Amino acid sequence: MSAVYPKPLRRLVALLSRLPGIGEKTATRLSMFLLATPPDFARELGNAIARIPESVIRCSKCFNIADEDPCSLCTDPARRDDLICVVEGPTDIVPIEKSGEFKGRYHVLGGAISPIDGVMPDDLHVRELLGRVDGGGVTEVVLATNLTAEGEATASYLAGVLKGKGIRVSRIAYGLPMGSDLEYADEITVGRAMKGRREL
Amino acid sequence: MSAVYPKPLRRLVALLSRLPGIGEKTATRLSMFLLATPPDFARELGNAIARIPESVIRCSKCFNIADEDPCSLCTDPARRDDLICVVEGPTDIVPIEKSGEFKGRYHVLGGAISPIDGVMPDDLHVRELLGRVDGGGVTEVVLATNLTAEGEATASYLAGVLKGKGIRVSRIAYGLPMGSDLEYADEITVGRAMKGRREL
Repeated sequence: MSAVYPKPLRRLVALLSRLPGIGEKTATRLSMFLLATPPDFARELGNAIARIPESVIRCSKCFNIADEDPCSLCTDPARRDDLICVVEGPTDIVPIEKSGEFKGRYHVLGGAISPIDGVMPDDLHVRELLGRVDGGGVTEVVLATNLTAEGEATASYLAGVLKGKGIRVSRIAYGLPMGSDLEYADEITVGRAMKGRREL
Repeated sequence: MSAVYPKPLRRLVALLSRLPGIGEKTATRLSMFLLATPPDFARELGNAIARIPESVIRCSKCFNIADEDPCSLCTDPARRDDLICVVEGPTDIVPIEKSGEFKGRYHVLGGAISPIDGVMPDDLHVRELLGRVDGGGVTEVVLATNLTAEGEATASYLAGVLKGKGIRVSRIAYGLPMGSDLEYADEITVGRAMKGRREL
C-alpha cells in the first residue's frame, strides 16, 4: 500500500486484506469506496461487522448459528428426530435445505479434522454428537462433511466412533454433479460414480 | 440469502453486498469468516470502517486524501510549484508517483464529468483548479484524467476553460501500453499511437 495514502486508510486496507479472497488491490478499492460513500453507510457496515460475533448465537444442541437457542431447525415439530445430518459448518445446511431431501435434525461440527492445521476431533463438536446419539431415539446419522481430504477423514473417523452404537451410519453419495460433462470430469469422481451406479 | 440464517447475519450480508464487486455469495463467505474469527478482529475491522470517513481528511489545496492539511505533496519543497497535474481521484496519484516522471503539484477533481450520472463541472473541484491557476505562478497544467469517455470529456472541458490563461495545457500521451502486443491492441489505441509517433 502506497505510503502516499493517509495512515487510517493504510490501516483499513491492511485489515481488509486479511479477509479471505481479498487482496491488497481489492482492499484499496473497497477502502476508497467507503471513503467516498455517505458516512452513514460506513458507520452502519462497520457497526454490523464489529458486533457480528456477539449478535449471532449458536444453538446449544446442534451448534448451528441461530436467532434463538435451541434453533428453529431443532424445535421444528415437522422434522424427524431420529435422523441426524452431520455437516462441517452452518453454510453447508443451506444447500441441503434447498434440496428438500432431508427432513431430520442437523449437527454442526464446526470444521473438519485436519492434523496439518492442528484440528483434531476434540476441537470439533464430536463429543456432543456422540451425546445426542447415546441419548437415544436416533436411527441414522448421515455424514455430510465435504468431499475433500479433510471431510473424508472426518467422515471415516465419525463412522468409526459411531460403529457399534446400533444405528445406521451413511455418507452422502459420490458421483457426477448435475449438468456435468463426463468428458471433463476427473477420474476419481467418475470412478466413484461408476462404483455407486444404481439400477433404473 | 437463506432465511435459515439469523437476522444479524442476513443484515451483514446485505450491507456487504452493497460494496463494489461483492456479490451475495462473497458477502456470505466474508460474514461467515467474520463470525468464526476472534471477535477482536471483527471489532477492529468494524471500527476502522465506521470511522474511516471522519479519520481521513482532505487537503484543502489539492483535495487529495491526507494525514494533514495541506498535504505533504502540496508542501514538499522539492516539488515544482509551476506544474499542476489534474487527476480524477486520489488513487490516480499513486501510479504517477511510482513512475517518477512528475515532480510538480496535484489537483484531485473528485470524479469526471458524466451527464448520464449527473456529474457536472460544478460537482468537481474545477472552480478551485481555476483559482489555483489564477493565483499565478503556474506555467503548465497536465490533464491526467482517465482515458475513458468521461475522462476525455473532462479533459476537453478543462482544456476549454484553461485556454486563454496564458499557460500550457497538456494531456498525458495516448499509446500502446508497455509489454503489449500490436496484434491484440484495439484500433483506436493503435491509431492514436501512430498519430503520436515520435522521432528517435
